[in-house]
Amino acid sequence: MTPRIGIILGSGSDLPHWENALQLLKKFSLPYAIVVSSAHRTPERTLQTVHDFEAQGVGVIIAAAGGAAHLPGVVAGHTLLPVLGVPMPSNLLGIDSLLAIAQMPAGIPVATFGIGEAGARNAVLFAIAMLAVGDESLRQALAAYRREQQVLVVKNDQELQDQIRDL
Amino acid sequence: MTPRIGIILGSGSDLPHWENALQLLKKFSLPYAIVVSSAHRTPERTLQTVHDFEAQGVGVIIAAAGGAAHLPGVVAGHTLLPVLGVPMPSNLLGIDSLLAIAQMPAGIPVATFGIGEAGARNAVLFAIAMLAVGDESLRQALAAYRREQQVLVVKNDQELQDQIRDL
Amino acid sequence: MTPRIGIILGSGSDLPHWENALQLLKKFSLPYAIVVSSAHRTPERTLQTVHDFEAQGVGVIIAAAGGAAHLPGVVAGHTLLPVLGVPMPSNLLGIDSLLAIAQMPAGIPVATFGIGEAGARNAVLFAIAMLAVGDESLRQALAAYRREQQVLVVKNDQELQDQIRDL
Amino acid sequence: MTPRIGIILGSGSDLPHWENALQLLKKFSLPYAIVVSSAHRTPERTLQTVHDFEAQGVGVIIAAAGGAAHLPGVVAGHTLLPVLGVPMPSNLLGIDSLLAIAQMPAGIPVATFGIGEAGARNAVLFAIAMLAVGDESLRQALAAYRREQQVLVVKNDQELQDQIRDL
Amino acid sequence: MTPRIGIILGSGSDLPHWENALQLLKKFSLPYAIVVSSAHRTPERTLQTVHDFEAQGVGVIIAAAGGAAHLPGVVAGHTLLPVLGVPMPSNLLGIDSLLAIAQMPAGIPVATFGIGEAGARNAVLFAIAMLAVGDESLRQALAAYRREQQVLVVKNDQELQDQIRDL
Amino acid sequence: MTPRIGIILGSGSDLPHWENALQLLKKFSLPYAIVVSSAHRTPERTLQTVHDFEAQGVGVIIAAAGGAAHLPGVVAGHTLLPVLGVPMPSNLLGIDSLLAIAQMPAGIPVATFGIGEAGARNAVLFAIAMLAVGDESLRQALAAYRREQQVLVVKNDQELQDQIRDL
Amino acid sequence: MTPRIGIILGSGSDLPHWENALQLLKKFSLPYAIVVSSAHRTPERTLQTVHDFEAQGVGVIIAAAGGAAHLPGVVAGHTLLPVLGVPMPSNLLGIDSLLAIAQMPAGIPVATFGIGEAGARNAVLFAIAMLAVGDESLRQALAAYRREQQVLVVKNDQELQDQIRDL
Amino acid sequence: MTPRIGIILGSGSDLPHWENALQLLKKFSLPYAIVVSSAHRTPERTLQTVHDFEAQGVGVIIAAAGGAAHLPGVVAGHTLLPVLGVPMPSNLLGIDSLLAIAQMPAGIPVATFGIGEAGARNAVLFAIAMLAVGDESLRQALAAYRREQQVLVVKNDQELQDQIRDL
Repeated sequence: MTPRIGIILGSGSDLPHWENALQLLKKFSLPYAIVVSSAHRTPERTLQTVHDFEAQGVGVIIAAAGGAAHLPGVVAGHTLLPVLGVPMPSNLLGIDSLLAIAQMPAGIPVATFGIGEAGARNAVLFAIAMLAVGDESLRQALAAYRREQQVLVVKNDQELQDQIRDL
Repeated sequence: MTPRIGIILGSGSDLPHWENALQLLKKFSLPYAIVVSSAHRTPERTLQTVHDFEAQGVGVIIAAAGGAAHLPGVVAGHTLLPVLGVPMPSNLLGIDSLLAIAQMPAGIPVATFGIGEAGARNAVLFAIAMLAVGDESLRQALAAYRREQQVLVVKNDQELQDQIRDL
Repeated sequence: MTPRIGIILGSGSDLPHWENALQLLKKFSLPYAIVVSSAHRTPERTLQTVHDFEAQGVGVIIAAAGGAAHLPGVVAGHTLLPVLGVPMPSNLLGIDSLLAIAQMPAGIPVATFGIGEAGARNAVLFAIAMLAVGDESLRQALAAYRREQQVLVVKNDQELQDQIRDL
Repeated sequence: MTPRIGIILGSGSDLPHWENALQLLKKFSLPYAIVVSSAHRTPERTLQTVHDFEAQGVGVIIAAAGGAAHLPGVVAGHTLLPVLGVPMPSNLLGIDSLLAIAQMPAGIPVATFGIGEAGARNAVLFAIAMLAVGDESLRQALAAYRREQQVLVVKNDQELQDQIRDL
Repeated sequence: MTPRIGIILGSGSDLPHWENALQLLKKFSLPYAIVVSSAHRTPERTLQTVHDFEAQGVGVIIAAAGGAAHLPGVVAGHTLLPVLGVPMPSNLLGIDSLLAIAQMPAGIPVATFGIGEAGARNAVLFAIAMLAVGDESLRQALAAYRREQQVLVVKNDQELQDQIRDL
Repeated sequence: MTPRIGIILGSGSDLPHWENALQLLKKFSLPYAIVVSSAHRTPERTLQTVHDFEAQGVGVIIAAAGGAAHLPGVVAGHTLLPVLGVPMPSNLLGIDSLLAIAQMPAGIPVATFGIGEAGARNAVLFAIAMLAVGDESLRQALAAYRREQQVLVVKNDQELQDQIRDL
Repeated sequence: MTPRIGIILGSGSDLPHWENALQLLKKFSLPYAIVVSSAHRTPERTLQTVHDFEAQGVGVIIAAAGGAAHLPGVVAGHTLLPVLGVPMPSNLLGIDSLLAIAQMPAGIPVATFGIGEAGARNAVLFAIAMLAVGDESLRQALAAYRREQQVLVVKNDQELQDQIRDL
Repeated sequence: MTPRIGIILGSGSDLPHWENALQLLKKFSLPYAIVVSSAHRTPERTLQTVHDFEAQGVGVIIAAAGGAAHLPGVVAGHTLLPVLGVPMPSNLLGIDSLLAIAQMPAGIPVATFGIGEAGARNAVLFAIAMLAVGDESLRQALAAYRREQQVLVVKNDQELQDQIRDL
């Protein structure tokens, strides 16, 4: 199936942070391609992956990296597609990767999301929101997902009320 | 003209950070709407602005705020449109607003950009990149802009070579 | 019983940070209402909760959230009641939520407390201090609590002296 | 006139951060007492000020300090009244004073506000909100102030629209 | 035995950080007094402890606390004796307590040491160095301790050489 | 006159931060020696200065440096005298020098003070407090200085009351 | 003249931070090439510059950038030559660029220096030290430079002694 | 075998961070010497180690330390050889050691690498790159290592594809 979203992880060891995010893509029936490639160790492979994604017609690229997280910026410098960056936590908790993605100089934007699992999920949800702009059925699926989240908050509240009772 | 991008500033005093960004939109002939509204002081106005933007058919909303910068997140909680957030610098240099935008909990994404003027310009360029996905002439305008930037780097280099000579 | 304090948690998973704080309210025989609601996922529910609290006549609202902790600020924008905010720790240890609560722009105040369990307890004690201003018996209960704390410090010292002996 | 709010500044040189805040108190016709006293250089004077404030029947104490800002915590340890703390900026921009006020250990709460002028104004507004809980006319004055702020946002927006036109 | 050093811990739960430091005092045969007292929960007890230490003729006071660590500063405001402060780690790793001790305003000095166990040991060694200024036998004991440390480094090196061999 | 305190500045350009501190030493009639020497550019000179100070019989050494402020630690590694370290502000506001002085490993203590002018003054006051332990007339001079500070706070308060009147 | 050191600046506006560093290279009679190129805006030009430097036989490449400073890392990923990185200060004082250079993932090293002018000078001095390893006359020039620095410290001390006299 | 690289660890307990780095040196058949020595506890030993390394003809010295990590700077002040510094993590995650190494004042450079294990590996790889400048066979070994890393990325990608399939 032709992917609509291309994902590049700087390291396969970051997969645990991405499992929920990938489940979301499955839930929305959005085909995606995911590739491990490093901005510095495999720069040509990274470039090739960007070109492959462009050739496959993806509408958005998500890139994730930790430490001095250059991958999203390097990707953004080689494509006109919108690029989303997700900081992965490491020995400074991810504050280094957050800054290394968010503080891009004017001219080559990277849309940055939060550190780790929440950021991964939000990058995917943002990509879905982008694709949903011109796609009514996807927009309705997103609206339904929002409503599910609201139901979960109510359920979460009921559990809390039960736990409070026993304090 | 129907706006394609909606911008909300938490305070009109942030305009100086936005002038280059707005010039970019002019250069790309992209009609936009810009509104001052505060997440906390005028929550209903903020909500109304989001609904107005939706009704006008904008494809993306950009929100900027400083300090405990809640505006982008509040906007994102009330729309299915993609929301871009730009941290404005204040007494902690903007690190507080960067974190208050980037660290959104999973479920309601905000695409975050750098602090201040560079972030403002990049948010606008990202919005253009989003709109360019399905718009070949905009894509070509964006490609041309990238080439202009490259020419500027070369010109910047020539100035440096002149300055070096006199050291 | 009519609640005197309204508490909103951004997530039910923060309950462990709140158990001691809720025990304190029990100890002071202060009825409270506690609700799980998210600033972004369930904005209407959050607004409704604020209005419910106002209708029930609570004198103070406590709101707790982690990451880009907007909940206390959003609550404060919708009520004239005093709002207390408690940052919950997450992947940046809670420094992000502390800044996202404390650095509110001028106009809509949120009284901020420390990160996590200590902040939760102190927010409750502050709420009690507020209610005690016009309530002599509550003021005396608070004074008694302060004395108990002093007794605990002395007991803590005696344990230390015992442990020191064996060094 | 009997003060309803007591303010302690660690240094008179912080007055510029407080001028807008004090104008607010004037606007709300709330009598206040303000005293310069240092937690460390004049501990007895600080204690005496707290006792004077209590004797005068103030309902809330605001304390402001910079650097290792101990004043609010020291005040809180000597009174059952609610204590509000405001970090003043100095050579580390005020992040040191923010942490030194917000991170109070469990047991002796201090309600913390933002760094500098905005924090000063918000502490005063919070104090007004506290006093307004049992005072309908003050509550209406606060509601009116909120509406004025909203008018200012609209005016601020109109100025922006004018400035935008000339870009 | 008359104590030569007075130690105040804000909480007995910090004892594990102090065991090595107290062993050092034993090794140097320096009698000390140690008391648990809180700057905020037991301000009078803290003051009384300072006066007791002065009456007992201690030459230096060490105070340790975590979070918004006011104890060393409060002690310093009530005595002319040299006061050493040691930040204890808590939910922000101790950076809050380090700043809350080191950034004292001009006029009331606190000598600050590192966070946690190393800081505790160094505060004790500094106290010994102070007492050693006018005490030749203590100075020689300190010199001997320095030499022991050097022997430990050499021993540590030999262990490393053994471990390297097996790599 | 034989110096009682030895001061080493990493750079003569830090003198403006030290003028008030040196005036304090003059006021207390305490002879001191001050030397510019760099831990890294002139390590032998630094060592020689330490030995000179020891030979002159100083009772305490104060060392000040900015950036990666190693000077106090290097001095401490070459003497048994108590060493006080003062971080000087530079491009990271002095947080780098504060950490580089305070976080010394266990074994070689440096007593750290606040960043810049306040830290310089407090290091000098701490040195005076150390020397005052066995010197009743110095102790009384220090007590008098504390009282002068208290008078200044009262005067500072009176100025504030005057300024408030005109608001 | 064949350059021995290649320098890449991310922006010509950083030249003021580099003037002293370039004067040092002149003083050591070391020919160098300097080019403005951006990691993201002109990735091909950056790559070409690296290849040109390699073809010219430079022994070391220095790259400087601000914000999300990817330039040094990108250069390092495309050459086997040693790469030195210098963080340039911007709206977060340069802490973002320092982390974005220093925290490179294992495999592609970048030797990082301090923020701004001092870092620029030290990167050049380090490059000289590298080249001096196999070049006795350069080694002696470096040794002479070190002695000059020591003379400057002594001169700096004499100026201080003069200034102190007038206090 | 004559060592080509000299390594100094501030503490033998840092060895686990160095095992991969030392394996790298083995893989490249580069003889090295490694010594435990402390900048402060054993300053003479540190100096002696530097002189020994110089006498043995090493071309580069690597020094690693945690906390207020002065070791690399102290080493750099005593040699003309290039010095690489590696921050070791401790109670502030290593941000203190990173700043204490990177922010060296102009004049005495230290090439800084990332915190912990990745920094150790990168320092060794940088040392190899330095030695490879004039050593074609080493340069080819480094090129081969880079290719191996690329193969590992591809293998890492294949593992990811397998894991994705089972989601």
